[in-house]
Amino acid sequence: MTDVAKKAPLAERLVAGDKRALARAITLIESDDPAGWELVREVYPRTGKARIVGFTGPPGVGKSTLIGALTAELRKGERQVAVLSIDPSSPFTHGALLGDRIRLSDHFLDPGVFIRSMASRGALGGLSEAALQVALAMDAAGKDDVLIETVGVGQAEIDIVDHADTIVLALMPGSGDSIQALKAGVMEIPDVIVVNKADHPMTDTMVREVRGVLALSHDPEGWKVPILRTEAARGEGVAELAEAIDEHRSFIEAAGTLQERRARNLRNEVLGIATSRMRRRMEATAAGDPATEALLDRVVSRELDPASAASELLERQSNG
Amino acid sequence: MTDVAKKAPLAERLVAGDKRALARAITLIESDDPAGWELVREVYPRTGKARIVGFTGPPGVGKSTLIGALTAELRKGERQVAVLSIDPSSPFTHGALLGDRIRLSDHFLDPGVFIRSMASRGALGGLSEAALQVALAMDAAGKDDVLIETVGVGQAEIDIVDHADTIVLALMPGSGDSIQALKAGVMEIPDVIVVNKADHPMTDTMVREVRGVLALSHDPEGWKVPILRTEAARGEGVAELAEAIDEHRSFIEAAGTLQERRARNLRNEVLGIATSRMRRRMEATAAGDPATEALLDRVVSRELDPASAASELLERQSNG
Repeated sequence: MTDVAKKAPLAERLVAGDKRALARAITLIESDDPAGWELVREVYPRTGKARIVGFTGPPGVGKSTLIGALTAELRKGERQVAVLSIDPSSPFTHGALLGDRIRLSDHFLDPGVFIRSMASRGALGGLSEAALQVALAMDAAGKDDVLIETVGVGQAEIDIVDHADTIVLALMPGSGDSIQALKAGVMEIPDVIVVNKADHPMTDTMVREVRGVLALSHDPEGWKVPILRTEAARGEGVAELAEAIDEHRSFIEAAGTLQERRARNLRNEVLGIATSRMRRRMEATAAGDPATEALLDRVVSRELDPASAASELLERQSNG
Repeated sequence: MTDVAKKAPLAERLVAGDKRALARAITLIESDDPAGWELVREVYPRTGKARIVGFTGPPGVGKSTLIGALTAELRKGERQVAVLSIDPSSPFTHGALLGDRIRLSDHFLDPGVFIRSMASRGALGGLSEAALQVALAMDAAGKDDVLIETVGVGQAEIDIVDHADTIVLALMPGSGDSIQALKAGVMEIPDVIVVNKADHPMTDTMVREVRGVLALSHDPEGWKVPILRTEAARGEGVAELAEAIDEHRSFIEAAGTLQERRARNLRNEVLGIATSRMRRRMEATAAGDPATEALLDRVVSRELDPASAASELLERQSNG
């Protein structure tokens, strides 16, 4: 009872929009404290109102600057903004970025903006689930926009933003690898593409290349992916980005795909959380267990193949 | 008994180096036939002799051409070579590549070379395990070198080549996104870096950038990652690549890290296979089960949060 009495106020403060309650909630989630999971359970019926926007793209294209500028734009409309940055190279992680120090510290002082970063290295699997929990907490806290920033052009990174309503891919002149990944079908087509650092002389070439890739997968009935040019450090093109996000939202709402998309993503999240818990449970059982160690040693000495060892491990798991 | 009698000859033919037996074994593994897993179990004690080399890097840098040229180089030393390509953009998948048609068909006619591709889209998780099984079958078939090609700069793609003894990252002038990913620590430093298409005027700039990144993580006691320039389509620099792979192999053997690396990778593979089986089992149970459907519907309607639904699913799993 004392335990519940201690937790109930946090949930209440969270849904009332208390910034410190949100910070505390995220710390609990990040440290995998059961109180964090319980908190999300409590506030979950209050979620679903925020607009979740995921940002992906290679490091160095200026995603954080872009998100900072977009935040300023969204604040003009009095929207409550939360930023979750999952990017080891992010200035939100490493401290203030040189050119953007003023813009970022503006946001730090603004009570309508909440910025939080999570480390990415190593834990990509479980991180995707933790990121969803944090996004749900931000949503429950009454944020209008939850901006999730991740990095990379691989599938694991894209999984993290997969529960977003709108996915923005940020590129810059020189993002040849990402263009090739889109072209080869290794990376899925996002909802909005931004070519940042558009003052670069190669911008036109990059935009043309992107347009060429999109033409290959064009669906006349579907959403027409806009290609925007921004110079985020100077705020240029950012109003157009805000508008494109609005338009995409309206489009999927009208087409009925927002509900579909959310339903599919939530189902995947449930399976994802279940899988990563199973894996963690299995690793915990395996660590330091002499029988498991012996089993793994037999694999290393080429006596027992990996698949048979996995079967034995699973059998032991379901019996233990 | 009939079943065993049918399988035993395949294992025998496989370890005798019969090309058709190897092809059949891979088809079994790829289609997730239990006979495939059993075959690998049987031949596993015969594995561990092949040199496993993993190739990663963004699409479009010419990895397949590079591997084709490397294969020709390795054949000069009478080595038996197997190539496993896991790359939706690969010419091994899509058919012959224009400029390399001659080189590839040379290999197709060479009994000392075995080339096989696997589709990557969608199944990155289970694919990593299937790729290991195929590599083990190639190893058991007496191949001296098993070259595994994958694509992308994300962690999921790198997991696939993680059981390689030597990892080669292929870049080209213009691979800015990959350089940034290395610099940001999003991508791990490989064992050998190749800048292909080295006839491009920006090659020097690219090599300098790569050198700059490597300087940041330089370990004076450890392996010094070589940066090679190749023009794979003309065979240039390929002998040097073969040499660098040799040298890396000698280095990790002398340092004792080859055994360590293989032990660590095999342990991860066991946990990986166990996890993906659990997930598949869970998905099979969930699909079409009315109770699970009802559970997922409650998540979509914001009644029950994803983590609690995952717990219920796991509980049901261990009771069922």
